[in-house]
Amino acid sequence: MPKKGILERLRDGVVIGDGGFVFALEKRGYVKAGPWTPEAACEHPEAVKQLHREFLRAGSDVMQAFTFYASDDKLENRGHYAQKSLTGKSINKAASKLARDVANEGDALVAGGMCQTPTYLSGIGKEATQKMFQVQLDAFIEEDVDFLICEYFEHVEEAEWAIEVCKKSGKPVAGTMCIGPEGDLHGVTAGECAVRLAKAGADIVGVNCHFDPQISLECISKMKEGLDAAGLKPYLMAQPLAYHTPDCNKQGFIDLPEFPFALEPRICTRWDMHKYARDAYNLGVRYIGGCCGFEAYHVRAIAEELAEERGAKPAGSDKHGMWGQELKMHTKPWVRARANKEYWETTKPATGRPYSASMAKPAGWGITQGNEELKQHAEGTTSDELQHVRDIASSKK
Amino acid sequence: MPKKGILERLRDGVVIGDGGFVFALEKRGYVKAGPWTPEAACEHPEAVKQLHREFLRAGSDVMQAFTFYASDDKLENRGHYAQKSLTGKSINKAASKLARDVANEGDALVAGGMCQTPTYLSGIGKEATQKMFQVQLDAFIEEDVDFLICEYFEHVEEAEWAIEVCKKSGKPVAGTMCIGPEGDLHGVTAGECAVRLAKAGADIVGVNCHFDPQISLECISKMKEGLDAAGLKPYLMAQPLAYHTPDCNKQGFIDLPEFPFALEPRICTRWDMHKYARDAYNLGVRYIGGCCGFEAYHVRAIAEELAEERGAKPAGSDKHGMWGQELKMHTKPWVRARANKEYWETTKPATGRPYSASMAKPAGWGITQGNEELKQHAEGTTSDELQHVRDIASSKK
Amino acid sequence: MPKKGILERLRDGVVIGDGGFVFALEKRGYVKAGPWTPEAACEHPEAVKQLHREFLRAGSDVMQAFTFYASDDKLENRGHYAQKSLTGKSINKAASKLARDVANEGDALVAGGMCQTPTYLSGIGKEATQKMFQVQLDAFIEEDVDFLICEYFEHVEEAEWAIEVCKKSGKPVAGTMCIGPEGDLHGVTAGECAVRLAKAGADIVGVNCHFDPQISLECISKMKEGLDAAGLKPYLMAQPLAYHTPDCNKQGFIDLPEFPFALEPRICTRWDMHKYARDAYNLGVRYIGGCCGFEAYHVRAIAEELAEERGAKPAGSDKHGMWGQELKMHTKPWVRARANKEYWETTKPATGRPYSASMAKPAGWGITQGNEELKQHAEGTTSDELQHVRDIASSKK
Amino acid sequence: MPKKGILERLRDGVVIGDGGFVFALEKRGYVKAGPWTPEAACEHPEAVKQLHREFLRAGSDVMQAFTFYASDDKLENRGHYAQKSLTGKSINKAASKLARDVANEGDALVAGGMCQTPTYLSGIGKEATQKMFQVQLDAFIEEDVDFLICEYFEHVEEAEWAIEVCKKSGKPVAGTMCIGPEGDLHGVTAGECAVRLAKAGADIVGVNCHFDPQISLECISKMKEGLDAAGLKPYLMAQPLAYHTPDCNKQGFIDLPEFPFALEPRICTRWDMHKYARDAYNLGVRYIGGCCGFEAYHVRAIAEELAEERGAKPAGSDKHGMWGQELKMHTKPWVRARANKEYWETTKPATGRPYSASMAKPAGWGITQGNEELKQHAEGTTSDELQHVRDIASSKK
Repeated sequence: MPKKGILERLRDGVVIGDGGFVFALEKRGYVKAGPWTPEAACEHPEAVKQLHREFLRAGSDVMQAFTFYASDDKLENRGHYAQKSLTGKSINKAASKLARDVANEGDALVAGGMCQTPTYLSGIGKEATQKMFQVQLDAFIEEDVDFLICEYFEHVEEAEWAIEVCKKSGKPVAGTMCIGPEGDLHGVTAGECAVRLAKAGADIVGVNCHFDPQISLECISKMKEGLDAAGLKPYLMAQPLAYHTPDCNKQGFIDLPEFPFALEPRICTRWDMHKYARDAYNLGVRYIGGCCGFEAYHVRAIAEELAEERGAKPAGSDKHGMWGQELKMHTKPWVRARANKEYWETTKPATGRPYSASMAKPAGWGITQGNEELKQHAEGTTSDELQHVRDIASSKK
Repeated sequence: MPKKGILERLRDGVVIGDGGFVFALEKRGYVKAGPWTPEAACEHPEAVKQLHREFLRAGSDVMQAFTFYASDDKLENRGHYAQKSLTGKSINKAASKLARDVANEGDALVAGGMCQTPTYLSGIGKEATQKMFQVQLDAFIEEDVDFLICEYFEHVEEAEWAIEVCKKSGKPVAGTMCIGPEGDLHGVTAGECAVRLAKAGADIVGVNCHFDPQISLECISKMKEGLDAAGLKPYLMAQPLAYHTPDCNKQGFIDLPEFPFALEPRICTRWDMHKYARDAYNLGVRYIGGCCGFEAYHVRAIAEELAEERGAKPAGSDKHGMWGQELKMHTKPWVRARANKEYWETTKPATGRPYSASMAKPAGWGITQGNEELKQHAEGTTSDELQHVRDIASSKK
Repeated sequence: MPKKGILERLRDGVVIGDGGFVFALEKRGYVKAGPWTPEAACEHPEAVKQLHREFLRAGSDVMQAFTFYASDDKLENRGHYAQKSLTGKSINKAASKLARDVANEGDALVAGGMCQTPTYLSGIGKEATQKMFQVQLDAFIEEDVDFLICEYFEHVEEAEWAIEVCKKSGKPVAGTMCIGPEGDLHGVTAGECAVRLAKAGADIVGVNCHFDPQISLECISKMKEGLDAAGLKPYLMAQPLAYHTPDCNKQGFIDLPEFPFALEPRICTRWDMHKYARDAYNLGVRYIGGCCGFEAYHVRAIAEELAEERGAKPAGSDKHGMWGQELKMHTKPWVRARANKEYWETTKPATGRPYSASMAKPAGWGITQGNEELKQHAEGTTSDELQHVRDIASSKK
Repeated sequence: MPKKGILERLRDGVVIGDGGFVFALEKRGYVKAGPWTPEAACEHPEAVKQLHREFLRAGSDVMQAFTFYASDDKLENRGHYAQKSLTGKSINKAASKLARDVANEGDALVAGGMCQTPTYLSGIGKEATQKMFQVQLDAFIEEDVDFLICEYFEHVEEAEWAIEVCKKSGKPVAGTMCIGPEGDLHGVTAGECAVRLAKAGADIVGVNCHFDPQISLECISKMKEGLDAAGLKPYLMAQPLAYHTPDCNKQGFIDLPEFPFALEPRICTRWDMHKYARDAYNLGVRYIGGCCGFEAYHVRAIAEELAEERGAKPAGSDKHGMWGQELKMHTKPWVRARANKEYWETTKPATGRPYSASMAKPAGWGITQGNEELKQHAEGTTSDELQHVRDIASSKK
């Protein structure tokens, strides 16, 4: 019996997405921070599969194939040379198969995803950029994924180009941008971005990455206003960071001095995710998932918060009482006393970091597509180039 | 060819331990917070195996079988009832096999571990407590682990009893306590604890869990003073938390209001672990690993810091340039500017939490073994009991 | 020779106001927090005079008579009973004389001030409210102050009524409200408030109290936009708090849990005031002073920042080198090393408070004029009333 | 009728000291930070007198003449040149008269104080150093002060020399050092310092300045242990900072990066002083006052906390209800709800500073008397000298 499709699921209820693969697998030792590309789908399939399984147990309805940044131009960017042994197509096919294997261990769907490209960032134009998307799409079609996700776009123009390519496949398409309430990096407002995504053909519209749950929902709220004003009704989707980012500018967490190796103090708790799930649901978001920083327990918290709406708790809740109930089995009485919702809802966690401030000044270079500094190249970054960017960084302090 | 034993490795160089299984697997959805017991070794072997593999790739020289809290009295404590379908022995055997499988994918050793028991905490006496240890030991002997770890003891008396049992096996024994510089919960100083562990027969002596790396090393420093004064020379071992705990009292992180579900802001960065590894090494610690909160990337940081001393970087470093070198491949120039040691050593990460303080007041009930409130029982915690502990907690605010 | 008037001074340059009397004199022991009324002008004239002198030395061009909240209804509010021995008129006359005495020790002007009334808050109407203002004005006219300040209004309607009364005197009138960028408590925008103040006759328009310098300037920026759109050109005036209030809602610092007895960690440094002065000047504000929390050294910092624009440093700078120059005379060499602008501009001061968060949730009752709870009465607050408000406060946590 | 002497008062009850003059008068515009010398006693007597009066109203039993750092070598140190128009003797005489005038407005005593000297710091020897003390003492004897305070010594040796000089006068002598629990800068323990102060002849022994109330009491506790062990029973005295200094090393707040112009976030609240007064009293301290940062409201809080022990509240309490009672007269109901002890005892004040950490790393140069860098001279600090110390400061970051 065929599985129910993504659009039908969204029509009838709430769909729970998965979490962030590149950050989780970087910590586990399978992904390079910097390039953030998904060779592990070919190199370490068991590790990728295990992560899919964790999200499935946690309640994810979608296994998004691990194909982030798998465009061929990215695989050979700045001395990365992953492209020497692997192509974007081979990664996408392998990743789709892994996702399908695990999806079939439950009732989940498989999504193929693609994102922003160095080609666009370097200003090489529409045709070249769309070719990057087409290659990736071909792999997804061959593997017959259930739907497509065009995500992590900083410029709505590039997102439109991706959606345009994907729409030709006839499969449902989701389009999300890594923007906040201030809009895209070319200055297009969040509301206008949403309208343009929908008009380009996205059945599902929203945001992913770059901002924390609360700020992402602020952005979606603005997107919704824009869509309502334009009389458009795509489904809404949120896949935010699991990092608190109250101090970000429009470039998001990339600009924070802690990115990417000192973000730990910003990691959201499971209780932050209860709030996120409820707020997203109340705002009308029906595809609720996560991006970088989201691990299985964050997704499970979404599923537990929405257990009533969804009619069931996820499999992984067999190891987790709602709101800390299993603490009743702890040996220490003062920990047993914490087995209740009120305790966890009101605790403001101490940071254990007396030498840390709560907010940071983002790097704030304020450059975007079209700027010379952003042109990409296949060769490795030279010492001179490195000194050049360090000099600029110093001058901006 | 047989692998080189643990004592020979310690004699010749530095041994890197692994990280914390119960916390990592709780987040992944396989372990219950509260009881913290290792049924997953039987129920979800693929998940346990994957975690072992991550540590192996990260540089761990020891695969500690996932047998934490697997005494039969703990498996049936306070309504847990895991004991209905599984025994401590069956778990320990399954866990040892998993650890061996992965250890043999590299050059790692297998350790069998045991820890504090409800029987001791309830004051039932030496014979009953040692019986709990003997059952666990039998499983380890049947599976022929390479050495034994008696760990996570809050009272040196119980640790001595465990070591006494393990020594009869003829295998090397490590003894570690979850104490800080203030000593054990019965008021025995850290120095005296170390001496008693060594005299009970531990070849390796140190601390694990309950405190952050820096505080744990302070404790080991006091242990060393005690050992030196007594003319004893066991190897030193550290397996601290990966959570900052500057505000803990002698009970450790259990007393923090954030325990166990809101510890995120306290998670150490990989750079904190570079410092920990160097400081531990300089102090003379030769078994350097981690406990709760430690994930593969933390262990890899230890291995990278000590790469010169060990003559090699770990396998997992193929995805990680030293001190952030792979950021040279990042698309954004200001992130490329962060590809250097000085940047990461000096960054004090912002917490993103303007409503959080940096320190918390520990619960501070100050009760320990011998106290009525700490007696354990097989039945679930009743509502009345729960209300009773919540009332005490309220009165202590 | 008569002194140059306030409007001429504003036309020709920048006027520096004074700081906050009620908060400074509360700390010195002469004012009651709670009622915040100025009986000290009669009871302890030497203390009031000394504070005037400190501001004069610091560079203040205006000695504002210490008449805050001196309306007769406030002097007998809620069991205060100051009105039994003193009337608003007697206070205002005494205060005006003190201000004149000190003003004549330099080239300063004297201003008479009046502010919001319990009569308005209790909804008793325009006639009764204006009578409160008229009594105060009479005293100022008898003492021939140089100009009038209608300040600290939460509702623009009441401010208009005050300005209306004052304009009849023929003296220049300044009108400031204790609002932030969100506008007044009845929901009138900041821009509209400014327009209404100007149309009511205020020659000088702006904000005072309730918010920190940065937020106050944000509000004035919105006021300026409103005024520009309406073609109005009053002088702009800022007298903000010397407390950081990034976390306030539209009610301002009154709503912060720290108000009024635990605001210390929020006190601005002198360097914050350099920035404030420069930003205010650049925005076009020409009356730059302070309110609660501002002490002489804050005012001196304004005067030093604008020394070039004003052609001179204030008298008090004989004890203060610009940007810490006198630290060159410190006995400790590392303190001498701090005698420079860069050091003080970039230092983010640690708080010394590891158990404090950086932000607080304001009380947020959200009630305003017209609400029953805000009606005032002469009798003291009863135990029942007190319990009632504490119950509401608890329920809002 | 002669006033009761200091030793009789201490024998019979608790004596309340005053607060810090140099910091308070620096903010008011009468003292230079850097040299920190008391020329204002001659130049602006009305300002000094007013500050005395505030402390008298607040409950101070002692008016300490404003003679801090009035040794002739300090008055001409590093280009200060105050000595050109004023001598230490003229300042001390003027200051003693002012103190006496205000003391006689109540029942307070007058103390003459002297402190560490550049002569000692530069290593010029005992005779030259004691000459500096003798000149100051002569002035106090001529003005017939009630007792003497030798305070603010970083090295117990210099304190002994000062006490030795003062004892010859026959007046009671108090000796306090600006040290913390780690002892003096030459490495003498706190306990040994206390013993040496007492043996040198001090009737009253303790600490002042450099550390916050809690740390200062820790130090006094160690002093008491030393005195008890030596069988000595001087009265104990505490005059700590009103700044939180949990992060200081043994050099105290001088080493903090915020010293002296960005200490605001560390200022103690009045409620911190209630706790200080109670803890000091319980420890057996009978002379309880303050140093830098202490203003009248801090002293009043001490007097209010100890009102029962002293049999009366201070005059200044006519403007201050115990634990915020006068908030019952506030117009806003949620502020009235704060009129209770529990509210203020439990509030952890937010800092309003999201970009500030709670702790700072002290400068930590670790040099002390005997070091070349600490030699003082009359000429101003040259550019070269300044560059030299800035270079050292940079290298220590």
